[in-house]
Amino acid sequence: METTPENTAHGYIRAGDKEKLRHRLRRIEGQVRGIQRMLDEDAYCIDILTQLGSIVAATEKVGLLILKDHMDHCVRHAVERRDEADEKIEEVVSAVERFLRV
Amino acid sequence: METTPENTAHGYIRAGDKEKLRHRLRRIEGQVRGIQRMLDEDAYCIDILTQLGSIVAATEKVGLLILKDHMDHCVRHAVERRDEADEKIEEVVSAVERFLRV
Amino acid sequence: METTPENTAHGYIRAGDKEKLRHRLRRIEGQVRGIQRMLDEDAYCIDILTQLGSIVAATEKVGLLILKDHMDHCVRHAVERRDEADEKIEEVVSAVERFLRV
Amino acid sequence: METTPENTAHGYIRAGDKEKLRHRLRRIEGQVRGIQRMLDEDAYCIDILTQLGSIVAATEKVGLLILKDHMDHCVRHAVERRDEADEKIEEVVSAVERFLRV
Repeated sequence: METTPENTAHGYIRAGDKEKLRHRLRRIEGQVRGIQRMLDEDAYCIDILTQLGSIVAATEKVGLLILKDHMDHCVRHAVERRDEADEKIEEVVSAVERFLRV
Repeated sequence: METTPENTAHGYIRAGDKEKLRHRLRRIEGQVRGIQRMLDEDAYCIDILTQLGSIVAATEKVGLLILKDHMDHCVRHAVERRDEADEKIEEVVSAVERFLRV
Repeated sequence: METTPENTAHGYIRAGDKEKLRHRLRRIEGQVRGIQRMLDEDAYCIDILTQLGSIVAATEKVGLLILKDHMDHCVRHAVERRDEADEKIEEVVSAVERFLRV
Repeated sequence: METTPENTAHGYIRAGDKEKLRHRLRRIEGQVRGIQRMLDEDAYCIDILTQLGSIVAATEKVGLLILKDHMDHCVRHAVERRDEADEKIEEVVSAVERFLRV
């Protein structure tokens, strides 16, 4: 899926949500760096696994927030205007499918 | 699970694997930063979701490499020496359970 | 979430999809019975695990088909009529969240 | 992975665990049949999704019980006897990998 100029013009994600997402992403980035430190310090494998699981869950949470915004704006607008509604619905379901890796 | 001094002394993860893990973690860190940029540039939500899914998969792959090393060293040694084998097996299965979030 | 009379009246899932879903569910049911037989016959654990993983993937695939139908009908209609659109969007995102167990 | 005669001879899964597993599998089978009924009765999609999620979680729980038994018996014995320990460890990690679908 390419980022088209038309898409980037929208700015679907609400300013308030963006701030929240940035905060969460900075935390995830910090957790990933934390694991590099745990490796350097020969931390116990099980502790590293626990931290990795927490990164996975936090990343999926960010995905859900973005899915919510996408449904609230892009999918909703396409359906309201009956403009590419089928394509948008198909697209978001495929995105969930890739996320679940089914 | 606390990191005990005895645990850190081991350094279970092989030097070669550590280098590979560090490389992967730096890539994941870069991907997380990339998503912050995508947010700043109002990238298309579906593109962001795809990238987040790729971070999740890469993080789980790192988890599997660490699980493999943990089984190869810590669990194997505990079983060979019959020293806390039950505890180690219980612990690693619980770690997989938390990872699967069942 | 209760099944309201109004909901059951709709029959959101298209007849053609229903037939496909029934076919898949019967296959999953057969796989679950197959695992009971594997247990009786002392099949190798790893073979059982592989079969269980295949049931998980097949069940998630059924979930995606139902999600798709739900988006195509229920969510789309709510948005087109501007009737409980917020609630329907909120509800479907929560359903994905529970499915991902985040 | 083939079920070899040698493997079936073991009967790795403890009798007590087998009874518990059979009970859980019968419940999962009942849930799968319940979803076929929900389809026939035009149940609400979100209710069906919730039930499918519960089947996924229950199936993964069964997988974890079998993983635990496999580690307790097969992997442990291979390591204790230093007989195909590498193969058994490799095999169980690959099984977790397939389960996570990474």
